[in-house]
Amino acid sequence: MWIRTIFSQRLSMDREIQRHPDGAHVAVVGATGAVGREMLHCLEALKLPIRSLDVLASSRSAGHTLDTAWGPKTVQDAETFDFRGVDIALFSAGKAVSEHLAPRVLEAGCLMIDNTSAFRRAPKWPLVVPEINGDLIALRPGIIANPNCSTIQMVLALKALDDAAGIDDVRVVTFQSCSGAGQKGIDALLDETRQALEGNRPAASKVHARTMAFDVVPQIGALLDSGNTEEEEKMMFETRKILGREDLRVAATCVRVPVIRSHSEVVHVVTRRHITVEEAESALNDMAGLRVTDYRQKGAYPTAVQAEGLFDTLVGRVRVDPVASNGLIFWIVSDNLLKGAALNAVQIACAAWNHARNGKTHE
Amino acid sequence: MWIRTIFSQRLSMDREIQRHPDGAHVAVVGATGAVGREMLHCLEALKLPIRSLDVLASSRSAGHTLDTAWGPKTVQDAETFDFRGVDIALFSAGKAVSEHLAPRVLEAGCLMIDNTSAFRRAPKWPLVVPEINGDLIALRPGIIANPNCSTIQMVLALKALDDAAGIDDVRVVTFQSCSGAGQKGIDALLDETRQALEGNRPAASKVHARTMAFDVVPQIGALLDSGNTEEEEKMMFETRKILGREDLRVAATCVRVPVIRSHSEVVHVVTRRHITVEEAESALNDMAGLRVTDYRQKGAYPTAVQAEGLFDTLVGRVRVDPVASNGLIFWIVSDNLLKGAALNAVQIACAAWNHARNGKTHE
Repeated sequence: MWIRTIFSQRLSMDREIQRHPDGAHVAVVGATGAVGREMLHCLEALKLPIRSLDVLASSRSAGHTLDTAWGPKTVQDAETFDFRGVDIALFSAGKAVSEHLAPRVLEAGCLMIDNTSAFRRAPKWPLVVPEINGDLIALRPGIIANPNCSTIQMVLALKALDDAAGIDDVRVVTFQSCSGAGQKGIDALLDETRQALEGNRPAASKVHARTMAFDVVPQIGALLDSGNTEEEEKMMFETRKILGREDLRVAATCVRVPVIRSHSEVVHVVTRRHITVEEAESALNDMAGLRVTDYRQKGAYPTAVQAEGLFDTLVGRVRVDPVASNGLIFWIVSDNLLKGAALNAVQIACAAWNHARNGKTHE
Repeated sequence: MWIRTIFSQRLSMDREIQRHPDGAHVAVVGATGAVGREMLHCLEALKLPIRSLDVLASSRSAGHTLDTAWGPKTVQDAETFDFRGVDIALFSAGKAVSEHLAPRVLEAGCLMIDNTSAFRRAPKWPLVVPEINGDLIALRPGIIANPNCSTIQMVLALKALDDAAGIDDVRVVTFQSCSGAGQKGIDALLDETRQALEGNRPAASKVHARTMAFDVVPQIGALLDSGNTEEEEKMMFETRKILGREDLRVAATCVRVPVIRSHSEVVHVVTRRHITVEEAESALNDMAGLRVTDYRQKGAYPTAVQAEGLFDTLVGRVRVDPVASNGLIFWIVSDNLLKGAALNAVQIACAAWNHARNGKTHE
């Protein structure tokens, strides 16, 4: 299948099973979902030493078997699972599940790395992108919130530009893929597209705000009294929290597009000090996790399909914003299930495990 | 077919054939293309009185028959056509054809309404959106340039806001449909999408900058040394020319999306005087050709599929831009083949014919 990662279980049965007697005991909650499966892949790829792995989901999926790098695992019901003895629990089973189970996870002394929006706004819990504020992991919080997918990729670039020239104003317009709503979001897009190609008008979407076949929809999450959507408010709030910049002015317009995987964004930024396009590209390319793909070679820029399956976030079309004297515009693309979700969470897990094992409290 | 207008010849054979002995002699050049066919529909819908109609295209299409409201018409070869006696020629057969034939059209004393980019930048010829600078039609220029599709819909809104509160800064990000590249642009999207759904990787696109199936592509037209694409430079230049605002600061980022028809845009605008969202919506809705679809009702906003086939341009999600003290953000959607091309050209034709018939030189 051309659209590969979504449809295939990438692990094969005959691989060597990972064994690390001194490693971590890890639980993945929501392991059968689009992000959960990528969490398992990232745990393997980033070589977090794992002593014991539990895969959890709702009672509906309990009893199924998942093939993992640590052998076949039976999906357990998260509702009845005992988190005692678990070192790290990665959550991606929805906000309600995270809110419901958090007290039990904290009570068990387990680190909760939460990919939902449940704790992102809580002042008590850090919101972490390891390349930016990974130092907060060393403080050993009980919960570490994983930011919103569209925010993570953007803040990597904003951090690089803030360090290079200081940033004040950010205006972002997103092109977000249907996998942002999980596997059911992808399935809805594909089903609707097939129907449209067969000449039928797709029924109203049960997953997205509107039918996604051959249309773009400027609504992700509920429309709020502010005039913004929930997704837009997430980007505005989380960007400030992650960068530690309460004063940063951020405007976001979030649009769902008929793309399967990876989010693309157009970002307008105004810097305090003048910075050339070449200097900006250099700063962006030097940032961990970012890759400028064009290096001023005309015609080269990243797209969503290219970013699929990549750990790096790709930047292209960096250019002058003629509206502002210190304005820049750039295009940034990242796999929303990887750096936008599973990869960032597993990077946090790896850093937390290193801190726990080494007894360090600061990097 | 759900996606109706592209695939169906909407005219039926048994309709009453239009006859206006005192009407205009009109030629449509590029009549077999996506825009040309919509020009014929718009000529009928706007009831331009037509005495005689010629449908022209390249020699490849010559000899075919088109069913029109003025009876079946044989497609003639534009290269060998004699424009003498023709009152109005509507061109949409590509920039090279317009440049090549313009001297003969002017020599024949025929008004050329040109939908290509051939004459848009020429100081000698007006670039017209009738609701904005229709007064230029009364000056009886030999050529009237029809603006770029993505520009027309935006300037309608900018004109309304400029009159209401004065505008300084404009930043637009577009979501442009594949029909912007004509019928072959639509066919490419549908073919590529079918291939992807069948599990095959689509071949490199011969029409669009990249393969469009389930991807978004930040390139329309060539990438220029400025870092902008041709499409972006068109939006920046044409907006200033149409509004007569040399000083207006405009930034454009143009993105092709896997949508069949209608362009969507996110526009950030900074006004000189403060204006509330309600006042902005009122000004936008009062503008001819614009319709604000939500009127502050949450959950209602236009999308590309909804705009298909509509003459009105639809505005939604008008809200405050938190980055600027007098900033507004809005979402605007229009059928790129209608107001973005054929409808605007035919509106110009109707106004020009009224001026010619009434002997008026100013409205």
